[in-house]
Amino acid sequence: MLTVAMCMALVACLQAQELRGHVSVILLGATGDLAKKYLWQGLFQLYLDEVGKGYSFSFHGAALTSTKQGQEFITKVLESLTCPEDMVPGRCAELRGQFQQLSRYRRLRTNEDYMALSKDIEAQLEHKGLREAGRVFYFSVPPFAYADIARSINSSCRPGPGAWLRVVLEKPFGHDHLSAQQLATELGSFFQEEEMYRVDHYLGKQAVAQILPFRDQNRKALDGLWNRHHVERVEIIMKETVDAGGRTSFYEEYGVIRDVLQNHLTEVLTLVAMELPHNVSSSEAVLQHKLQAFRALRGLQKGSAVLGQYQAYGEQVRREQQKPDSFHSLTPTFAGILVHVDNLRWEGVPFFLMSGKALDERVGYVRILFRNQAYCTQNEKRWVADQSQCLPRQIVFYIGHGELGSPAVLVSRNLFRPSLPSESWKEVEGRPGLHLFGRPLSDYYAYSPVREQDAYSVLISHIFHGRKDSFITTENLLASWVFWTPLLDSLAHEVPRLYPEGAESGHLLDFEFSGTQLRFSRQQLEQLVPGLGSAPKPSDFQVLRAKYRESPLISAWPEELIAKLADDIEATAVRAVRRFGEFHLALSGGSSPVPLLEQLATRHYGFPWAHTHLWLVDERCVPLRDPESNFQGLQAHLLQHVRVPHYNVHPMPVHLHQRLCAEEDRGAQMYASEISALVTNSSFDLVLLGMGTDGHTASLFPQSPAGLEGTQPVVLTRSPSKPHQRMSLSLPLINRARKVAVLVMGRLKREITMLVSRVGHEPKKWPISGVLPSSGQLVWYMDYEAFLG
Amino acid sequence: MLTVAMCMALVACLQAQELRGHVSVILLGATGDLAKKYLWQGLFQLYLDEVGKGYSFSFHGAALTSTKQGQEFITKVLESLTCPEDMVPGRCAELRGQFQQLSRYRRLRTNEDYMALSKDIEAQLEHKGLREAGRVFYFSVPPFAYADIARSINSSCRPGPGAWLRVVLEKPFGHDHLSAQQLATELGSFFQEEEMYRVDHYLGKQAVAQILPFRDQNRKALDGLWNRHHVERVEIIMKETVDAGGRTSFYEEYGVIRDVLQNHLTEVLTLVAMELPHNVSSSEAVLQHKLQAFRALRGLQKGSAVLGQYQAYGEQVRREQQKPDSFHSLTPTFAGILVHVDNLRWEGVPFFLMSGKALDERVGYVRILFRNQAYCTQNEKRWVADQSQCLPRQIVFYIGHGELGSPAVLVSRNLFRPSLPSESWKEVEGRPGLHLFGRPLSDYYAYSPVREQDAYSVLISHIFHGRKDSFITTENLLASWVFWTPLLDSLAHEVPRLYPEGAESGHLLDFEFSGTQLRFSRQQLEQLVPGLGSAPKPSDFQVLRAKYRESPLISAWPEELIAKLADDIEATAVRAVRRFGEFHLALSGGSSPVPLLEQLATRHYGFPWAHTHLWLVDERCVPLRDPESNFQGLQAHLLQHVRVPHYNVHPMPVHLHQRLCAEEDRGAQMYASEISALVTNSSFDLVLLGMGTDGHTASLFPQSPAGLEGTQPVVLTRSPSKPHQRMSLSLPLINRARKVAVLVMGRLKREITMLVSRVGHEPKKWPISGVLPSSGQLVWYMDYEAFLG
Repeated sequence: MLTVAMCMALVACLQAQELRGHVSVILLGATGDLAKKYLWQGLFQLYLDEVGKGYSFSFHGAALTSTKQGQEFITKVLESLTCPEDMVPGRCAELRGQFQQLSRYRRLRTNEDYMALSKDIEAQLEHKGLREAGRVFYFSVPPFAYADIARSINSSCRPGPGAWLRVVLEKPFGHDHLSAQQLATELGSFFQEEEMYRVDHYLGKQAVAQILPFRDQNRKALDGLWNRHHVERVEIIMKETVDAGGRTSFYEEYGVIRDVLQNHLTEVLTLVAMELPHNVSSSEAVLQHKLQAFRALRGLQKGSAVLGQYQAYGEQVRREQQKPDSFHSLTPTFAGILVHVDNLRWEGVPFFLMSGKALDERVGYVRILFRNQAYCTQNEKRWVADQSQCLPRQIVFYIGHGELGSPAVLVSRNLFRPSLPSESWKEVEGRPGLHLFGRPLSDYYAYSPVREQDAYSVLISHIFHGRKDSFITTENLLASWVFWTPLLDSLAHEVPRLYPEGAESGHLLDFEFSGTQLRFSRQQLEQLVPGLGSAPKPSDFQVLRAKYRESPLISAWPEELIAKLADDIEATAVRAVRRFGEFHLALSGGSSPVPLLEQLATRHYGFPWAHTHLWLVDERCVPLRDPESNFQGLQAHLLQHVRVPHYNVHPMPVHLHQRLCAEEDRGAQMYASEISALVTNSSFDLVLLGMGTDGHTASLFPQSPAGLEGTQPVVLTRSPSKPHQRMSLSLPLINRARKVAVLVMGRLKREITMLVSRVGHEPKKWPISGVLPSSGQLVWYMDYEAFLG
Repeated sequence: MLTVAMCMALVACLQAQELRGHVSVILLGATGDLAKKYLWQGLFQLYLDEVGKGYSFSFHGAALTSTKQGQEFITKVLESLTCPEDMVPGRCAELRGQFQQLSRYRRLRTNEDYMALSKDIEAQLEHKGLREAGRVFYFSVPPFAYADIARSINSSCRPGPGAWLRVVLEKPFGHDHLSAQQLATELGSFFQEEEMYRVDHYLGKQAVAQILPFRDQNRKALDGLWNRHHVERVEIIMKETVDAGGRTSFYEEYGVIRDVLQNHLTEVLTLVAMELPHNVSSSEAVLQHKLQAFRALRGLQKGSAVLGQYQAYGEQVRREQQKPDSFHSLTPTFAGILVHVDNLRWEGVPFFLMSGKALDERVGYVRILFRNQAYCTQNEKRWVADQSQCLPRQIVFYIGHGELGSPAVLVSRNLFRPSLPSESWKEVEGRPGLHLFGRPLSDYYAYSPVREQDAYSVLISHIFHGRKDSFITTENLLASWVFWTPLLDSLAHEVPRLYPEGAESGHLLDFEFSGTQLRFSRQQLEQLVPGLGSAPKPSDFQVLRAKYRESPLISAWPEELIAKLADDIEATAVRAVRRFGEFHLALSGGSSPVPLLEQLATRHYGFPWAHTHLWLVDERCVPLRDPESNFQGLQAHLLQHVRVPHYNVHPMPVHLHQRLCAEEDRGAQMYASEISALVTNSSFDLVLLGMGTDGHTASLFPQSPAGLEGTQPVVLTRSPSKPHQRMSLSLPLINRARKVAVLVMGRLKREITMLVSRVGHEPKKWPISGVLPSSGQLVWYMDYEAFLG
């Protein structure tokens, strides 16, 4: 019997439904593994969360299977749905019954099928007198099927006016930047950006989803800590014990970087590294700040990665894909990557990203380790965990599994007591004997979710509420591929280190960085004992001393040659500063000096930069900030690493009055008078030259009308290659130097090296032959490839 | 009965003696504590080491005591001399007998006494037909007695021609730079530099003496490690358990910094930090490199130190020195110091120096902790100590005492196997359960001396062999005082933190750094609960917003005002870069902007420096590198900390053709055209101005004939104060800016602030009143002192 109160509640309920409307959820690939394992359960959770809040629902499981088979499958799945622990069982059973009622299988193959679906939805709406709120299409299908489905939805299955469309896409979103862009363009022709929800299920993991709220709710404590002055390192880790057996056809094509790092770990990286928006619940602000973080990432190089492959992988691939015994896969199943974020907040802080299969444990975490900036006066035996600033201080977002067995947020007790929302996070109970990250669990404030939720349930709820910041926008996706693609390309032919499965690998996969280079900590055995056929290494050779064109010649393998030249330059600099208080160094542009500049910038701790003047030997007539500019090379490879006072740096004035190298602007004369004002007797302490395959040096080319002789110290010249206009020191000025070093490297220089060794003083023909300091010293630095031809 | 062989040996021995000559050692203060405890034993050791090697000896114990008393004392001391463990007892007893024969007491008070001593030595030489090799005078007397003794030695007791004089001096060598210099000058009037041996007995400690040889013998392993890229920190520590009881008359005058840090710990610091000479056995090279290390030390400031005093000290002083109850000593008995070495090798590496009395243990060590640059892939339970690069890597020179109980050199096994001279260092035996520096002893390669030697024995041997690098030269001494004196002066009135003795102090004395500032990790209780009379702190106040001259006024305490202005500048910069791709900022010189520049340089991690152009509002007509130059301030406080590309920095061209601000050089016009070429519409995004007490702004002074109006964007002006010549942006150009901020700070500005608030638009009289952006925004930033007058 209906009471008045029940009647009123029913009316209110119906009104509310009318108010907010009907939502149709179409799960494409409803009979697949992911759907079976997570998605149906997620949809049921959505229903549990939203029922009675003003929406009505229908759930359409769709696939290519026949209606009968599909419906059978779905019935089975629906029966296995589980209820949340904290729900009254009777109530849950009742709601599960309703959910089953609302869920139907539907075969969707042709465009007509989609039209029919749309009609059926409309008919149902009309029949029940419901307004349509929106439609969700969840693509749990392989990417090759995306386009056709998208076309059909767009043409035949969009909701009516005023209702929203949300399509949910699962990775992989392409294989590299180009394919991702193509896919995005294709999808973009069917859907608006705001209609697309690209899933990265890591963003639904509770500990990952807590990163931004945690940073927001603990702003005060973190404000001074979350930067390069206090953070020693960040580790973003996903370790698996399973291998790729049974999935090698997918895995061979993707590998660990595309499978895990490009998406999951990169998303986590941006959440840690991004500037925190004032309002973290603004999806737009979060997405904008994420993109900013992408822009600050330093480009990856081959040396930024170490790769591994578990030993059994090759055999698995050969077996599963019927490859011959001679087939060897280069697909990495393990990768460690060193990432740098080039902004003032993070400059110099190493971000380690690592993931691998067949490792010793299953665990995922983000660990922010803070620097120890304290000295603790008492003997370490007397240090108290929550007081000593000398014990490790760290914040860990524990994504799951591992020894803890559940998601968690850990904050060292000597750091601060964190604030977490008490309705969703509770303190972890004591676990005597459990050590994590070098300290007992009791050393941390440790929180875990009040209710553990599956990532897909979380994300399905976010889709329903339109929270786009938990999904990958097109811009975000492409930014990630822009970041990863060059590395993937450069690693395409890299042989990964083989490792035994599980704990057997010992320290074999440990890696470490030095500068921007990452390498395995342990050398491979075969590298320790060089085989018979192995190539000679630089250190196997001595620096060779001889004569070339009657001047001293220093010859060695490239690495040693650069080291020797850098040593010689430093020694010259130290002597000059000791005698004269300053050192005037003139440098050539081009690519040969790059390793030299880097060597000087990062290895020469005693170099007297504060007393060094840097001059250019030659310059291309382009603006100074042009990538082609010699000065730009100097800036990138040297100046930004060392402290040369601004006024000691002397770029060539090629760009005056908004034009390049105009005679009338008298740039060459200006440079000459700057030299004459600052360099005693216009004698540079050291001039570094190169030699071109045509025998040119500085920007003095064969048959040049200026600079090979005469009184002009600095001249404008023309190069046979672009950009043609150049400014250059003249031979007479170069020959006033106290010391001239000529650096010649690479096998391309063999011929000219041979030739120039035989010619006399013919600067018109071979400008390099005119280099002969009048009272200074000339030294040739040639690598074996250039010299031993 | 003499055999022929014995005869020949005897003759050879006599010849050798004749060859090398006779050495007289005069120990001044022979009856004092130091002599009794160490020096006689050291002289005996010298005799044991050198007997039969060609020298003959006599030892003169000297003091002011009567001959009888003195001789009795010495006889007693000589009887208590101990033999080395590794010497045959009979042989030692025999040699001790000889040593006793050669040692005599002698009263030395007057100049006549010294003359007599000299005569006696000469007579003895003549009597025995010996040539004089040299004389050692060991000053174990209070410093006030130095001058008289030195005068007497110089005038009356120098050895004959061809023989050397060595005078050995004990600290204290002065109380600060001035007194040390006076003492050095005084001694310098009596002795040559090479005649003086200033003892720092720390240099005789075996582990300290091993630092340079260790660095030398392990060059290959250390070469890549001993620098800022790999060293995380250096700790130089001397902890004592004893207090100053019984010695407070000395201690009150010196305190822990003068007693331990200025000498012992500083010497150790230089041994660690100095560039390693090619030849470490060259005294001269070592001393030169030490001095270089001193020059690289960054100056200490008040904030570089934390001070403590054990609780009982005050009472000990009052009791021992009969001071009234109202007397409170400020003498520190504990100090922690943060030292930075400003060169490329060590830049950014913290060196902690710490010493204190009445602490929880007696121990001294130098600990070099290396950065962890590795990620270890396996669970930490599986890390192996000598393989895992994630376990601490450290090198420790263990000076003595502590849990190990002897000097030692420790090198983590995951670092490298060190090379030490096997004749003097042996591997330490296992000590199960012993943990040092966070790891069990078994994690280290650990070496201790084969024979433990007292520091004084080591040093007396070095004196005898003229090894000056184990002693403090005058240059070295003064360099150390130059380094420490400013800190000592600035700390003169600092109240040290009181601490309970021994282990009771808990974490009270732990300290930590942030930037260049050191502070105790734990706040004092009384600071946590601010007293009634305590001064208001900046954070107690809100930023005040109001109007001034009809433009927005932001007013606050200085610290907050600067923080607010820096925030506003960053926000403006970020907006500009987002909209236009670049940000043009024009900065004024002077002292007010210095804290602002430092704030921007060190706290604003998101500032888009790479896209910022820096311009000068005004400049003094001095060379750019002149300390008076505004640009020099910008270089020192901002540019050297951030990465602004070279070509985005725009100093004013005040120095052209080797002259300053000559009209004919058209520098102002050049700057104007540079602005017009790069700054859209010549509208700076932000101009930062100041206001002088005469109402000037930029370098536009009252009644200036140029710059207050007219069409010239940049002008030459004259200042009433030196240097008179200036270059300045004009008011019309300033007023084109999108935003102008005027920063006014300090009570000296009160009057002009009041006055200017009342005047109208009178730029001729008050140039600041002409600042009124035509379409931009004007904001005043004034601290309370300038504004609330």
